[in-house]
Amino acid sequence: MITIDEHRARILRAAGRLPAVKSSLAEAQGLVLAADVAGRWPTPLFDNSAMDGYAVRAADAAAGATLRIVADVAAGSDEDPALAPGEAARIMTGAALPSDADAVVPLEQTDLGTETHDVAPEQITVLAAPERGAHIRYRGEDAPAGALAVTAGTVLGPWQLSAIASAGYEHVAVHRAPRVAIASTGSELIAPSGTPRRGQIPESNSVLLSTAVRDAGAVVTSIRIVADDPAELRRTLDGLDTDVVILSGGASVGAFDVVRAVLGEERGVRFDQVAMQPGRPQGFGVLDAGLIAFCLPGNPVSVAASFEMFVRPALRQMAGFAVIDRPRVVRTAATAWSSPQGRVQLLPVVADDETVRPATHGGSRSHLVTSLAVANAFAVIPADTERVEAGDPVTVMVLS
Amino acid sequence: MITIDEHRARILRAAGRLPAVKSSLAEAQGLVLAADVAGRWPTPLFDNSAMDGYAVRAADAAAGATLRIVADVAAGSDEDPALAPGEAARIMTGAALPSDADAVVPLEQTDLGTETHDVAPEQITVLAAPERGAHIRYRGEDAPAGALAVTAGTVLGPWQLSAIASAGYEHVAVHRAPRVAIASTGSELIAPSGTPRRGQIPESNSVLLSTAVRDAGAVVTSIRIVADDPAELRRTLDGLDTDVVILSGGASVGAFDVVRAVLGEERGVRFDQVAMQPGRPQGFGVLDAGLIAFCLPGNPVSVAASFEMFVRPALRQMAGFAVIDRPRVVRTAATAWSSPQGRVQLLPVVADDETVRPATHGGSRSHLVTSLAVANAFAVIPADTERVEAGDPVTVMVLS
Repeated sequence: MITIDEHRARILRAAGRLPAVKSSLAEAQGLVLAADVAGRWPTPLFDNSAMDGYAVRAADAAAGATLRIVADVAAGSDEDPALAPGEAARIMTGAALPSDADAVVPLEQTDLGTETHDVAPEQITVLAAPERGAHIRYRGEDAPAGALAVTAGTVLGPWQLSAIASAGYEHVAVHRAPRVAIASTGSELIAPSGTPRRGQIPESNSVLLSTAVRDAGAVVTSIRIVADDPAELRRTLDGLDTDVVILSGGASVGAFDVVRAVLGEERGVRFDQVAMQPGRPQGFGVLDAGLIAFCLPGNPVSVAASFEMFVRPALRQMAGFAVIDRPRVVRTAATAWSSPQGRVQLLPVVADDETVRPATHGGSRSHLVTSLAVANAFAVIPADTERVEAGDPVTVMVLS
Repeated sequence: MITIDEHRARILRAAGRLPAVKSSLAEAQGLVLAADVAGRWPTPLFDNSAMDGYAVRAADAAAGATLRIVADVAAGSDEDPALAPGEAARIMTGAALPSDADAVVPLEQTDLGTETHDVAPEQITVLAAPERGAHIRYRGEDAPAGALAVTAGTVLGPWQLSAIASAGYEHVAVHRAPRVAIASTGSELIAPSGTPRRGQIPESNSVLLSTAVRDAGAVVTSIRIVADDPAELRRTLDGLDTDVVILSGGASVGAFDVVRAVLGEERGVRFDQVAMQPGRPQGFGVLDAGLIAFCLPGNPVSVAASFEMFVRPALRQMAGFAVIDRPRVVRTAATAWSSPQGRVQLLPVVADDETVRPATHGGSRSHLVTSLAVANAFAVIPADTERVEAGDPVTVMVLS
């Protein structure tokens, strides 16, 4: 048996990081920026008004002064009206400040004149004199052109993408999202809505894996259900054009473990016993053309545990994320349970702000898919722990 | 002025919850289950083997006994081979247990006989006698048919969707994701990659809002950039077929605030001054045909703050989420900053496990889009606080 860390390290060494590609901003959502983004322009781009009001010559705008309104500058206007002494221009927030003005008097510091929404007044009276520079945002005062706006390695959420648009870009260099094919193997599997005859069960791993892959920020390229038939499995593999394939089922040493037979014996995937429960039999390797293959055991809780321990960190690393692991916290066991000697237990649990308890009363049996529905975390119990007692501190890997 | 809570309460009363719709499991990812899901079948579906090994009659399988192998039961097989005394069947994990068997002897507790991957041996010798029932999962032992598998109100992630598939379903009733149109208004806006002339700036709110809407679990139906022209804005509104429209810009009392003119004066949207900074001018209303309209101020940080305070909770409520708000935590101010008297300050900040600091050295100026790129939270400073001192406890709304 090898440890979780040994298996994981081997996977992360092989997985690497995907190259940078050019992406539209919308398609870059959730991806990792591959190169620094610098502003194409200074911020602000031009001297502009911070308020709705009047652009004035400060020397003229004493309290009580009446100013003649000679222009009306809207946002987006390229006008630069000349202001003679005693003159002012109505101006909108964000509009370009007339070159002759050196202060803005906000609307509420004027008598509003005869202003209406549509028509600027002929004159206004200033109620409070502005200081020179009042309510002006000067070109470049926040950042010069070329200033760093968003740093390589940043995960691109709404705020970061907004900053990149403001910097003057509609496309951006990101690490490509991994493309992932999913194959559930097993002759016992039928479509969930079908009626199983003796020996058959509803297939659930493909929806677990495909949605988990998308949650991890990767792209699902295909989903296949494959019978325990070597020829069918070979055809499935040969038809893939993708970065990663995740197979579930058939990874044990049993007589009918076709995944192990085809990928292990024919295609060089290494199969290990990993010291974890569930999820002991694990296959991982790099196939021809660089296709990364994960061969996970077939039961749903094993699939979930294997995905979190091995697949998700690899996908996140490939996509360029600095943080590839789920957060771990320590909670207090609300009840006792047993754990296998010599293997790390990964138990679906319900964790709140203080406590943790198994997600099923049935203990740690790995086939209990129903436990997954209410779990929000995996408890990670060390290999040398045979029993967790109520009140013990427990490390919990938080999933939502 | 009204408070944030007053404005928010009015929005949540109007927004309601969207009806349940039928969705494929893949399309239900991230949505909220609208009705309990009960298993169509018992779990397990049939008596089956928990191990790769031999299905035996326990009475025959004493240590040292040699058993004749008369059948080979694969997963998915519907065979039910008869076992006479002294006979056993090779069986794979998960395969249906022969009716005549009452225990399973795992492979490693046999001499393996002459087993190969492909061919079962003619006989095996038992090394350790099994108890009756050993390594058998009995039909229904985990749950009877009709048992509750996933509860209405559950957010559907990979584990929950897997449980629903296992329960026998490929479709599920979910609260529909809100459909959201986005309109950035302002004659000053140009495509980010364009070259602005005097008075123009790159448009960034549409990417902020569209990606934030998707992050909230809603669907973007259209994105429009609209000049400050009433006729153009009316045409945009009249062309929408969606649940929600989010407009940014033009919500103030300024002369050119076309959104306020068209939506407020013509379509019954109420505009308020909300006691927050940024984001004071806010419009909200329900248009003809039930279209919910948010009119947000135009600068990016105001848009981000308004989205988090008002739009996101409404979208989450519409989609049926029990938790509609971001988590809030308390952190210690790493530095001092000022906050406006009488308004709640929403300051983009960088929060770590212990401290919080403004995301820009420039303080709280709402036009600093660059501060968004590095922020991971909003500090929420009460209206009666004029200054945050280093060391003060600060409430932080965590965004990532």
